[in-house]
Amino acid sequence: MRVHPIAVPDPPLRSSYGLHAPYALRTIVEIESKGGAIGLAETHGAESTAEALRALAKEIAGADPYRLLGSLAAQNGDSPSTGGASIDRSQNYLVPGENPADLKARVTSAIEIACLDLIGKTVGRPVCDLLGRARDEVCFSAYAFYKHAGGGGQGVDTQRDEYGEARTPEGLVKQVQQLIAEHGFEDVKLKAGVLDPDIEIETIRQLREALGPNAPLRLDPNCAWSVETSVRVGKALQAELGNGGYLEDPTASLAGMAEVRRRLLEAGVNTPLASNVAVTSFADLPETIRTDAVQIVLCDPHYWGGIRQAQHLGKICDTFGLGLSMHSNTHLGVSLMAMAHAAACTPSLRYACDTHYPWQSAACEIVKGGRIKFDRGRIRIPDQPGLGVELDYDRLALGRERYTRCGYRKRDDAAEMRKRVDPNWQRTLPRW
Amino acid sequence: MRVHPIAVPDPPLRSSYGLHAPYALRTIVEIESKGGAIGLAETHGAESTAEALRALAKEIAGADPYRLLGSLAAQNGDSPSTGGASIDRSQNYLVPGENPADLKARVTSAIEIACLDLIGKTVGRPVCDLLGRARDEVCFSAYAFYKHAGGGGQGVDTQRDEYGEARTPEGLVKQVQQLIAEHGFEDVKLKAGVLDPDIEIETIRQLREALGPNAPLRLDPNCAWSVETSVRVGKALQAELGNGGYLEDPTASLAGMAEVRRRLLEAGVNTPLASNVAVTSFADLPETIRTDAVQIVLCDPHYWGGIRQAQHLGKICDTFGLGLSMHSNTHLGVSLMAMAHAAACTPSLRYACDTHYPWQSAACEIVKGGRIKFDRGRIRIPDQPGLGVELDYDRLALGRERYTRCGYRKRDDAAEMRKRVDPNWQRTLPRW
Repeated sequence: MRVHPIAVPDPPLRSSYGLHAPYALRTIVEIESKGGAIGLAETHGAESTAEALRALAKEIAGADPYRLLGSLAAQNGDSPSTGGASIDRSQNYLVPGENPADLKARVTSAIEIACLDLIGKTVGRPVCDLLGRARDEVCFSAYAFYKHAGGGGQGVDTQRDEYGEARTPEGLVKQVQQLIAEHGFEDVKLKAGVLDPDIEIETIRQLREALGPNAPLRLDPNCAWSVETSVRVGKALQAELGNGGYLEDPTASLAGMAEVRRRLLEAGVNTPLASNVAVTSFADLPETIRTDAVQIVLCDPHYWGGIRQAQHLGKICDTFGLGLSMHSNTHLGVSLMAMAHAAACTPSLRYACDTHYPWQSAACEIVKGGRIKFDRGRIRIPDQPGLGVELDYDRLALGRERYTRCGYRKRDDAAEMRKRVDPNWQRTLPRW
Repeated sequence: MRVHPIAVPDPPLRSSYGLHAPYALRTIVEIESKGGAIGLAETHGAESTAEALRALAKEIAGADPYRLLGSLAAQNGDSPSTGGASIDRSQNYLVPGENPADLKARVTSAIEIACLDLIGKTVGRPVCDLLGRARDEVCFSAYAFYKHAGGGGQGVDTQRDEYGEARTPEGLVKQVQQLIAEHGFEDVKLKAGVLDPDIEIETIRQLREALGPNAPLRLDPNCAWSVETSVRVGKALQAELGNGGYLEDPTASLAGMAEVRRRLLEAGVNTPLASNVAVTSFADLPETIRTDAVQIVLCDPHYWGGIRQAQHLGKICDTFGLGLSMHSNTHLGVSLMAMAHAAACTPSLRYACDTHYPWQSAACEIVKGGRIKFDRGRIRIPDQPGLGVELDYDRLALGRERYTRCGYRKRDDAAEMRKRVDPNWQRTLPRW
């Protein structure tokens, strides 16, 4: 196993966590078989992830990838009866990838995905075929952000600002139109919780007007709102999110989400609530279902323990009448393909997946052949075995150099916000 | 694909369904690849199963077994949101394998298992490794029945009556001791609902005395009791079933089971209720969990849509704090190995699996090398690829001949009861 921490130029995108730093950190994992086949995975960056992966090196050296699939699943002790507890709520509002409570699932995920890629490459099959392909194409959504001016990276890494500043409803509409023109997305997700809720409501209204009646719209303020504000926004946008749209994590905690849901239903608003903050592990599901706190769960093979755990989650959602969508972090092509394969073998996933992929530029891709292209917002599962991608080692080396050079060692959007926008900025929940 | 209906001599075992006929019907499925590898499965017999399998022949001819795994999963439309309904309750008390409502899952299961065997044989891997092995050995339980005198089969097929008659508590104790002496089982399941509940209570008491304090005991009257009787038996046996023991389907319907559970808990009796009659599909799980009707679900890869669906069920049980065990029908070695592999790749299965296997004799086994042996009640996953068994075609031919000759075309334990024991016998629920 080889573990490569890399840094990727990232533009100044805003969320309720703060501001994206000029570099996003990722970790590339290679597991090489005796026969010379190489299984790949990409996961969260940060020193802690690379260390946790390296700590498993002894267990992986000489192991059989098929047997690792079994022992990894057993390590996903996140269900009540296997002794795993629900993830510590007090840590739950850290930026994604920085919660120590879900480190284990993030690490086992990466190893599972690399093993699946290795097995697929060895037997000559796409990963989704190993696990039961349900579709050939996977839909992704346009992920729109309030954004400061500037591209990703610093100094020699500075990227062209392809999308420009977007800090008004009009700016967001333009950004979304540009994302759609370039990639063909049919669904739109707006990262909210950044500006006053009335401005964000107005942004959704203008998006609806600009995009016509069919595009499903999602709004995700990452817990920035009180129950009161969540209900107010839910009512205001009742007619605007459209069929297939949803309100994601408007407020913090399952109890808060359940309260929002109850009050929206009382007001006759049936907009589903989605979550990847209140629900982050299997242990969260019983209460989620009992209290109707969430109607759509966002899986993410990087977080939930791997692609097969995402399949389990899909079956649970299907069984209990919940919808399933997919969460994304800043990522490159290996993760994009892992997400596409996970979606392709999870039949109950019927929402377009989130992806940050359009926010990275061609200069930083580390897969051979460069950036993977969306066709009408979709990724078609390639005929190549495994995940269908290989590493470009020159470009990987550039990513490692950037990591060494950039100085960032963990994600801290609040610190970045203080550094570049407001020296007194703190993440307070609820903000509105 | 080749479909072989076979008949297997079966001794006169009793249950609340009636009496086992002299022949049990099974269907053996072979799927042969272009390269000449053969994937095997064994499933329920009866004309209807063979016909339903043959109806899929066109879909299977020329198909890729990996792709079949995907399309079969999609056909398991038994979840509320995929349009599948819960299985028709009015049909639910037919003998296992004769409910038209679960025919589809039985058929897709057989094809899934044959595809997994074929893939395993092609890539040189045991089936449980393809799906994530969680253990190397699988525990089975001693399955004890009230039994009339006589072995299985008729005429030339007549088998020696290895176990003799057992229609009293003492007879059952002797039978269980013989099963344990021969196979080393550590758990015991008594098929009940046959004699007066007080005699069955006494049977359990004598079993507990004979076996010492540790053996987990299970009691399964297949819905023969009223809520009242179920509660009475549950109270009477509070101290007798032991750690790991349970009461299985004492009464009919989820509502009945929930009522029994509520009343037992009120009386301070925490004996878990298990089910494979009230809960037979994913669509049954939400109500089961909401009403606490069942604490242990019996999976069966033959019924639930295959081994991967059994894995999903295992994850659901784990997530919601339910236990998972495994149901059995009369079966031969191919099914035994499918059950062993399913259990081996389902980490939350922590109860010994049921098996009827000891009730069949060496003469009727159709796998090469003859009967598979239990070691201390366990099956060790063999190193051979796939399920680890191949067909003995001479013995398969004998099974087909028996099928042609015996005249039985579907399972009807009530008709057999009328024919051989009591011409007026009817299955009435509750009987007590």
